[in-house]
Amino acid sequence: MKKEIYSLLEKFMLSCMEDSAHDKEHVYRVLYNALEIAKTENNIDYDVLIAACLLHDIGRKEQFENPSLCHAMVGSNKAYHFLIENGFETNYANHVKHCISTHRYRKNNLPQSMEAKILFDADKLDVTGAMGIARTLIYIGIVSEPLYSLLPDGMVSDGENDNMPSFFQEYKYKLEHLYSVFYTKKAAEMAKERQKIAVDFYNSLYHEASSSYQNGKNELNKQMDSSDEF
Amino acid sequence: MKKEIYSLLEKFMLSCMEDSAHDKEHVYRVLYNALEIAKTENNIDYDVLIAACLLHDIGRKEQFENPSLCHAMVGSNKAYHFLIENGFETNYANHVKHCISTHRYRKNNLPQSMEAKILFDADKLDVTGAMGIARTLIYIGIVSEPLYSLLPDGMVSDGENDNMPSFFQEYKYKLEHLYSVFYTKKAAEMAKERQKIAVDFYNSLYHEASSSYQNGKNELNKQMDSSDEF
Repeated sequence: MKKEIYSLLEKFMLSCMEDSAHDKEHVYRVLYNALEIAKTENNIDYDVLIAACLLHDIGRKEQFENPSLCHAMVGSNKAYHFLIENGFETNYANHVKHCISTHRYRKNNLPQSMEAKILFDADKLDVTGAMGIARTLIYIGIVSEPLYSLLPDGMVSDGENDNMPSFFQEYKYKLEHLYSVFYTKKAAEMAKERQKIAVDFYNSLYHEASSSYQNGKNELNKQMDSSDEF
Repeated sequence: MKKEIYSLLEKFMLSCMEDSAHDKEHVYRVLYNALEIAKTENNIDYDVLIAACLLHDIGRKEQFENPSLCHAMVGSNKAYHFLIENGFETNYANHVKHCISTHRYRKNNLPQSMEAKILFDADKLDVTGAMGIARTLIYIGIVSEPLYSLLPDGMVSDGENDNMPSFFQEYKYKLEHLYSVFYTKKAAEMAKERQKIAVDFYNSLYHEASSSYQNGKNELNKQMDSSDEF
């Protein structure tokens, strides 16, 4: 890829980015992860892969403002029109569009080309390990959700059967199950290396919170006048 | 403490809480941690300790809206006036006020009573371990700060000498150094048990991010037309 093309795409990407959990550093990490994965595959079209990585989240703002929109669909159309308007060939614009439209996990819209599979894997990789935990917690802060919900007995729920959104619910519903969804061997290996810290962190956080409630509620009952326990 | 007094204080606390990094579950964890610490000390005035824990962050909203205000000062005055207005004795209101005003680390305003020291320790404990990491990342999301800054060479800074706010800067500036500031033996022990996961998480996150940039930037240079390297 020519540097001026990279700069054109990067400038367009930056003009589209706003919310901080899917900020521009996520885009660079996805690009860098994708290039690391691509090294282990053959016949990769790097012009497609680099453009698709840079532009994969340019529909985020629209989805954030209107949650019924899918950022992969919005972004793939925005990218296609941007590329056509800037004189790129239709085949190229269509391939980039395919990669972006399939980078989100949807059963009826799966990545077909190797470049699309690598973007999918590189994006999922950024939700694994410590990075996945960190980005999820930042998102929890942005949308004002809690770390955990309480069970009817007042104890901390581990998130497993929660109906209400929280960090623990997101961990049990999504983060815990990510590690088996990769298309490439390299991404699966990279994810596996990152898995232990995510599991350790969830277990530690659950232990810290739940033991605090268990011990504390017992002690609080002891300090209440005996006639009125909690 | 009588349950109706607990409920009166709890209701006032809940009416004052808004931002989610210092949400009401933080208040309950501080209360429960404080009761756990208090078990190991003698002659604790639980009516003071429980009230101080419940009300320690009621000045957060004022500080969030006007960062020149100190939530410990605002909260201690709000608590004092609330207690006096509700018919509690001046000595009691003054002791609760002392605990709240000294719960934040300030060299010229240190906790004197055992109840104040326990509140200080219980509050600091909630910034240790996985909980400290989680609450800091949620705050980063609320105030739209990044996970890390980039060095002049485009690589990820570890936060050590950063001027700009980020999660890594907060970790190096504050979270890393918390483990030696406790007044009580019990809190120091509890913090020590939580230290490893915080260190492991920071190290993993730094490794994931920095290795991605290092490998990725090399690969990106290889894919650029050789005349124009990054």
